[in-house]
Amino acid sequence: MKIYLDNAATTKTDKQVVEAMQPYYTEKYGNASSLHEQGREAKQAIEQSRKTIADKLETLPEEIYFTSGGTESDNLAIKGLALAYPEKKHLITSKIEHPAILNTMKFMETQGYEITYLKINEKGLVEIETLKNALRKDTLLVSIMYANNEIGTIQPIQELAKITKENNSFFHTDAVQAFGKIPIDLNNVDLLSASAHKIYGPKGIGLLYKKTGIKLTPLLHGGGHEKGLRASTENVPGIIGFAKAVELSFENMQREFEKQKQLRDKLIKGILEIPNSWLNGDFEKRMPGNANFGFDYIEGESLLLLLDQKGIAANTGSACSTGDLKPSHVLLALGLTPEKCHGSLRLTLGKETTEEEIDYTIQAVKEVVEKLRELSPLGKE
Amino acid sequence: MKIYLDNAATTKTDKQVVEAMQPYYTEKYGNASSLHEQGREAKQAIEQSRKTIADKLETLPEEIYFTSGGTESDNLAIKGLALAYPEKKHLITSKIEHPAILNTMKFMETQGYEITYLKINEKGLVEIETLKNALRKDTLLVSIMYANNEIGTIQPIQELAKITKENNSFFHTDAVQAFGKIPIDLNNVDLLSASAHKIYGPKGIGLLYKKTGIKLTPLLHGGGHEKGLRASTENVPGIIGFAKAVELSFENMQREFEKQKQLRDKLIKGILEIPNSWLNGDFEKRMPGNANFGFDYIEGESLLLLLDQKGIAANTGSACSTGDLKPSHVLLALGLTPEKCHGSLRLTLGKETTEEEIDYTIQAVKEVVEKLRELSPLGKE
Repeated sequence: MKIYLDNAATTKTDKQVVEAMQPYYTEKYGNASSLHEQGREAKQAIEQSRKTIADKLETLPEEIYFTSGGTESDNLAIKGLALAYPEKKHLITSKIEHPAILNTMKFMETQGYEITYLKINEKGLVEIETLKNALRKDTLLVSIMYANNEIGTIQPIQELAKITKENNSFFHTDAVQAFGKIPIDLNNVDLLSASAHKIYGPKGIGLLYKKTGIKLTPLLHGGGHEKGLRASTENVPGIIGFAKAVELSFENMQREFEKQKQLRDKLIKGILEIPNSWLNGDFEKRMPGNANFGFDYIEGESLLLLLDQKGIAANTGSACSTGDLKPSHVLLALGLTPEKCHGSLRLTLGKETTEEEIDYTIQAVKEVVEKLRELSPLGKE
Repeated sequence: MKIYLDNAATTKTDKQVVEAMQPYYTEKYGNASSLHEQGREAKQAIEQSRKTIADKLETLPEEIYFTSGGTESDNLAIKGLALAYPEKKHLITSKIEHPAILNTMKFMETQGYEITYLKINEKGLVEIETLKNALRKDTLLVSIMYANNEIGTIQPIQELAKITKENNSFFHTDAVQAFGKIPIDLNNVDLLSASAHKIYGPKGIGLLYKKTGIKLTPLLHGGGHEKGLRASTENVPGIIGFAKAVELSFENMQREFEKQKQLRDKLIKGILEIPNSWLNGDFEKRMPGNANFGFDYIEGESLLLLLDQKGIAANTGSACSTGDLKPSHVLLALGLTPEKCHGSLRLTLGKETTEEEIDYTIQAVKEVVEKLRELSPLGKE
């Protein structure tokens, strides 16, 4: 049995997406900036894709800019805004952002910016008061993720964005985990990052939503693509695949939400039968496919490897910070001790996840945790 | 008949490249940062691709960094170097670089840098003396393209790099047009940009070669991918496709060079039979697939549109600056008047170009030029 429960890291590309991309490799392969038929064909396909995505987000096509992925969108939003509005030098984010935000913020510190990293409550939520108290006259930007990649917590984006706008600051949200999976409300949101490969689209393509009128200095200067905001020959197959993935995700959103939530709740219930285990993050304000567990007396990495041997692809913390044995910054921010952080397990469901897989996984995790605790000197206390 | 003579803008993805990419969408789709089997599989595929490319460039895998394309590589080389070595504030480039370099340089002017734009001679070449006279004690970087995208001129990179290093400055070359088509010598080259989609690989993937020991500040901060130099979930299918394209290009380089050069020379000979026409750029130091013509009394854009009607995909100036009716900066730098620049036609051959297509094209260009001159008040003088 092969079970993929790492859908927050990346997803299997949908067959319909792969099919949609094919003609753009070997038939309609023109450069969208060329004036001839093949060029115009590529250009039209891009603009149709932009419209498809804008429609689903209930916004305008000219507010959608294609990038190489969520990380680039995040970097462009923060650095591009800072360069375009150099007068304000204070930025706000949360302690539990994705490294694409946190490490960009750390870079901004070296460029003369002051950053406030908002604490979260024990459920993983940024509280409105916390943001209110942090806002300053010189706050250029507040960047808070829509949903967390490790613990799946869904932030109160509308409230956070509203008080940000009342303070005359810009609001950005990294919606890489939320986009295409839960409804997105762009009200009061100035900038939003999303990625294709988290929603069964191809890797290497993402978008930045930018409200009309907001200035950004490009990260990539060059041939004036994407209305001068993001130069580089357009990744036509990637854009086509992204649009197809968006179409499918939005069409099936409600059904997938219900289905994954139900399976996830079964998973949580089953795994929490294990003694000295707990769920990280909020039970309610949580992405439907996300479950993140803690186990006392266990190393998360050993857990992963044994689950892998049983055919289960799982994760501990974020796929984006592996190789790195530091405890998860998200779990630490929740108030867990470093020891408690080490025993974490993230299981993220996808549209192909079945009940049979969930049953098998519950059993496998129980066995593996028991085995590791038997082996561990810590487990014997 | 459909004839594609815009291969310098982009190429048809090779069928073998498309095939090589397929498994990485729906089978081996793991995130290369994940520790489980699917993740390790993706990681191994990336590292194997890096090695394939490094071997062809006769360099080390750890000197190859994957990016989203040539534009990003150029931006990363220039901005990343400037941020990492802030003490020197003078940059040198040529007047005929791709917009990815020129517009990045213009941006650097706003960041306190002084830029010297080297003139070229009437053949389109940067002369060694010109660079020698421009080098200063505070010159951080010299960036000169390997081969020009409009007129195909191949620069004396080895000589330029050598005197740059003697001045203790860094040397970067935008090799997007040259890579995979002519031999690349990395001697004295510190940084090199290349792209997949110019050599029958997919769009949205490129590389930066960075010599060991050189520091660069990342453009994209985030999860520490590409040894911390370029964060973003790795575009696994793109990387696999790039490596396959490199493999094929390098294997067939000599044969393709000879074949395209012969066809191109036939094309040049045929088209120069048209009165008041000329070849832009150097006859000898020229990319094998590049032909760039000038015609008196003609608008390049009308020429393109009529050729398009005859099934020929051609270009005028660069595909990267269309929409833009300004005369080509490359042709202006050659010393042509704006009027003479407007009547330019770029035909770039590819590996599928046939002699039959060349014969048809010569005839078509002759007819179209004649027709346009009949219609034009300028043509009647």
